[in-house]
Amino acid sequence: MSSFDSKSNQDPILIIANSENDADMLYATGIFVPDPFTLLQLRDRKIIMMNDLEIDRARSQAKVDEVVSLTEYTDKIKGKENSLINSVVELLHERDVHTILVPNRFPFGYAEQLRDRGISVNYKNDPFWDDRPLKTHDEVTAISEVSKTTEDALKMVFGILSESTVKNGFLQGPEGQITSEYIRRQLHIFLLERDCIAQHTIVAGGIQGCDPHNEGKGPLKAGEPIIIDLFPKSTKTGYFADITRTVAKGPVPDIFLRLYDTVLEAQQKAISLVKPGIDGRVIHESINNFFKKQGYNTGLSNGRMQGFFHGTGHGFGLEIHEAPRISTISQTLQVGHAVTIEPGLYYPDLGGGVRIEDNIIITEKNSVNLTKIEKDLVL
Amino acid sequence: MSSFDSKSNQDPILIIANSENDADMLYATGIFVPDPFTLLQLRDRKIIMMNDLEIDRARSQAKVDEVVSLTEYTDKIKGKENSLINSVVELLHERDVHTILVPNRFPFGYAEQLRDRGISVNYKNDPFWDDRPLKTHDEVTAISEVSKTTEDALKMVFGILSESTVKNGFLQGPEGQITSEYIRRQLHIFLLERDCIAQHTIVAGGIQGCDPHNEGKGPLKAGEPIIIDLFPKSTKTGYFADITRTVAKGPVPDIFLRLYDTVLEAQQKAISLVKPGIDGRVIHESINNFFKKQGYNTGLSNGRMQGFFHGTGHGFGLEIHEAPRISTISQTLQVGHAVTIEPGLYYPDLGGGVRIEDNIIITEKNSVNLTKIEKDLVL
Repeated sequence: MSSFDSKSNQDPILIIANSENDADMLYATGIFVPDPFTLLQLRDRKIIMMNDLEIDRARSQAKVDEVVSLTEYTDKIKGKENSLINSVVELLHERDVHTILVPNRFPFGYAEQLRDRGISVNYKNDPFWDDRPLKTHDEVTAISEVSKTTEDALKMVFGILSESTVKNGFLQGPEGQITSEYIRRQLHIFLLERDCIAQHTIVAGGIQGCDPHNEGKGPLKAGEPIIIDLFPKSTKTGYFADITRTVAKGPVPDIFLRLYDTVLEAQQKAISLVKPGIDGRVIHESINNFFKKQGYNTGLSNGRMQGFFHGTGHGFGLEIHEAPRISTISQTLQVGHAVTIEPGLYYPDLGGGVRIEDNIIITEKNSVNLTKIEKDLVL
Repeated sequence: MSSFDSKSNQDPILIIANSENDADMLYATGIFVPDPFTLLQLRDRKIIMMNDLEIDRARSQAKVDEVVSLTEYTDKIKGKENSLINSVVELLHERDVHTILVPNRFPFGYAEQLRDRGISVNYKNDPFWDDRPLKTHDEVTAISEVSKTTEDALKMVFGILSESTVKNGFLQGPEGQITSEYIRRQLHIFLLERDCIAQHTIVAGGIQGCDPHNEGKGPLKAGEPIIIDLFPKSTKTGYFADITRTVAKGPVPDIFLRLYDTVLEAQQKAISLVKPGIDGRVIHESINNFFKKQGYNTGLSNGRMQGFFHGTGHGFGLEIHEAPRISTISQTLQVGHAVTIEPGLYYPDLGGGVRIEDNIIITEKNSVNLTKIEKDLVL
């Protein structure tokens, strides 16, 4: 068996990854490095092996005990094939390491090459670092910052939408028809100017919003809900925020007003349940039941899912989706978890959907909602 | 042995990855999916397994033969643990697959779970898809597009710099002092407005440019070289371009003019050598020798590398760095390779560095240089 057990918890840890895309590597080293590098964590000592281009920066910035030069190890293995793994094995031998623990996502090819060279390799499933889901004060500060910027971006867009006029049912701005693409671009530029990067931002009007992964395109219409789901990363800290608002240029049919109020009530209900020790599944089921009681059913209709068919929330931090989930899977919420609460209802037959999403930190006194921006359907 | 051999070439291929970050997955499926999904490629049939949120989009957009529903396989394994790997194994059994070939970067944890369930797992080193480094006509078109936009972005910045005034040695624009950060932001916004995304853009003035990975910060000075290295990705196609120019607000000391002319001559020399069948190492060594002959030495000086201490070029495409390399490692250039040619010289003692980088497609008639933008040090 190669899966995690308490014994292997004591084994030295090896990660080979870039810290731009691998949040576990960023978490462990505190430095953004775009190319893969090696981390060896002994019981009380973190060592990283860096190439010549990064070694000086690593020595000044990385939160590790020791930075060794890849070039030195490449020199040491002269005669053998010049491969990263041969250099890594040289480092392991030098530190008397014969068994290592790696993350689930450790490259299989590297693991096989290590085994071929006599190293015993075990893996641990996510979360790899037990502490990563539990945010420290500094991490909450970083999340609060990007969350605040995300709110500012949304406010900017609410301004554009509320100042728009309506022509033949479509929203008009100073530069002509207002499209999903236009709003998305305004959001992305606003965020870029504040050292945040957003991708796949959803600006989905009307029936497009009924597919929760549809990013939205084309002219936006008055009188129907527009789902705006924005989840930027701070390029300074690496932390994400993830906020959704549903807005409409009024007047709006009663059917959407009721849909909105129901989702809003569900969200408030879910947030009120968030506290340390509660099972995320309990929150999710309570929202499912609430929607059912309000007459909003979930299931296939004309071959398409409608109702509430995604999780109530998910953890976030250095990744947009991380532990814990608040969904059908049983996971206990703990102090320090950062989670979204984002119920939604989607009815293609009605021609629209609603989702409202806030960012919550779980505290000893239940929770703190970082997201203060208003929740009004009609702008 | 689990590494690649000709026999395993015939084995079905399995990839589990998201196609946003995994270029092999994007290459195989032609659809951007932010969350991990599964590809099973039989000898003459590509199958992907998608969740409910993505299945409709996948059916209309993915370049595959069959899209199956993850939910259906989750239903089929009822009773067993609801894990992705159990669903994948169900699919493998159903298609009578017992041995699979995976990329080097396939998650080790998944490979172990597959083996625990009786599947034989082998890996192949990069390039995983033999054809991926060899760009088709459509791929060259996509690269040309993002390359053109990159040139336009650089021209925009050349305009800002050439229109700047000089005050106490520092560049001044209409909004005050011109900094690396300001230029980087202008580039990123320009690209964002054209559906391209750039990260880690280098705008490094003077001695900052001597560290090839220093992104640059602070006010830019007149009379010293500013290295601008821009490598955006088209969010529409996924392809990168990668262009560097070194510019200065004149007048510039002769020592930098000679440095620039030497790098430019080296680059022209390297480009003239690029043709099908040549070993990248031969090109790289010829540039090394050229610099030496011109009196520009490479090595440690006061504990810091100076001279020419990176590769002459690298392949690019759906990743910013991919096969082939043009460096100390022997790799033969082939028709269809897209490579950069980017010699550079860096002398902290002189207070500056120079790098010039173009994007080249290797053709039957030697090569085509996609990069047309001027190469003048002094703006």
